[in-house]
Amino acid sequence: MPDTTSSDGLGSYPVTPRNRVKRLHERGRYDRASVWAVLDGAMLCHVAYVIDGQPYCTPTIHWRDGDTLFWHGSSASRMIRHLEKGMPVCLTVSHLDGLVMARCGFNHSVDYHSAMCFGTARLVEGVDEKRAALDRMIDRYYPGRAATLRTATSQEIKATTVISMVIDDASAKVRGKGVGDEPEDLDLPIWAGVIPLRTVIGEAEVSPHVPAGVARPADLAPYRPGRDFAEALAEAQAVYETR
Amino acid sequence: MPDTTSSDGLGSYPVTPRNRVKRLHERGRYDRASVWAVLDGAMLCHVAYVIDGQPYCTPTIHWRDGDTLFWHGSSASRMIRHLEKGMPVCLTVSHLDGLVMARCGFNHSVDYHSAMCFGTARLVEGVDEKRAALDRMIDRYYPGRAATLRTATSQEIKATTVISMVIDDASAKVRGKGVGDEPEDLDLPIWAGVIPLRTVIGEAEVSPHVPAGVARPADLAPYRPGRDFAEALAEAQAVYETR
Repeated sequence: MPDTTSSDGLGSYPVTPRNRVKRLHERGRYDRASVWAVLDGAMLCHVAYVIDGQPYCTPTIHWRDGDTLFWHGSSASRMIRHLEKGMPVCLTVSHLDGLVMARCGFNHSVDYHSAMCFGTARLVEGVDEKRAALDRMIDRYYPGRAATLRTATSQEIKATTVISMVIDDASAKVRGKGVGDEPEDLDLPIWAGVIPLRTVIGEAEVSPHVPAGVARPADLAPYRPGRDFAEALAEAQAVYETR
Repeated sequence: MPDTTSSDGLGSYPVTPRNRVKRLHERGRYDRASVWAVLDGAMLCHVAYVIDGQPYCTPTIHWRDGDTLFWHGSSASRMIRHLEKGMPVCLTVSHLDGLVMARCGFNHSVDYHSAMCFGTARLVEGVDEKRAALDRMIDRYYPGRAATLRTATSQEIKATTVISMVIDDASAKVRGKGVGDEPEDLDLPIWAGVIPLRTVIGEAEVSPHVPAGVARPADLAPYRPGRDFAEALAEAQAVYETR
């Protein structure tokens, strides 16, 4: 049962041996709002899974509906033949926010935020279910776009693999405190500070085949040039959820 | 034996069942130059490993010396007690380069570049070995910085975990071709194009404790504000290697 006693009403994930933040546990968060915020501010995720004892770490793109994560099988086809009976996976989203330079090597660090999600991955089966999941992918990133596109053929739907996973337990971890020098190092004549990093949106490059008169569509509204990509993704998710 | 017949003299990794690029294999590369270029243009990596059948995907930062990858144990302490006898891992680096919008859902995609590296992770042991690996981490990111810092105490070295892995096999995968519409979709009045993404360096925020007169050091030269972070990292690695 979800814990619905948290102030936002979304509750928290259970804390289990696998999701408990072991090192620097004060950086850990288990509430859905914190985990979802990390997931919804990213498109790229990494999925860890095991085949015959060998771990694989595959990058792909993910989307979310409540506690269910979806991802695209195209980058994960090694998994597919092992997915029939469900497969334990760990899906992680991370963002590097800054380089942290201190007065000694030990206190060099990075600012970051990340989320690790655990569950059992399953194939989304059935043409209708897959079509719905893929429309959700398009609309979650580009709200309203799915209805404007040429409808996918059954052949295209069949050629696409969609994987889903209910999040059983998860944690988010955030480091954003800047330089953590030892008190006795503070007067040393060594430069220390933070160099922030941002992933920003560039100017759209229109396909040369787009007929004259076709304007930039409203579904791209969140992706203004120069904007922080994580902000745009979070806005797109919010617009999608209120539709 | 490395294949040293490639034009750059660095050779290629062997192609094995685990690193062979299965889907869209024309995007796969196995030569060291391609794999190293992806690794050296990133600081953040994701490491997949298995404990009691459960996969974990842990984000951390990596650095490279030839075919040996190092990473920081601080974010991977779950691994540590399992590392004594070596642990199979997959270390992946990925970068999202652009959003690709097409005329149908099926052809929506992303431009990206990534590398997956396979090997056996081991703890770096011994105070001198760990100190050398950590100095290498500092100097690889900020060339020349290690010698300017307050020397790490034995206590600090002991409190830090460094993991190393010789790359046994690896692959790089790149998608950068823009929109791939079907020929029969080209005349549809639907917007299509690519929205590029860049991770850029911001203005350094100096720690408030840095004494007056301490200037921004030369080791930060690659990290000019507004610059592409991947370019800065590649430059830092090149400067480091020529010292």
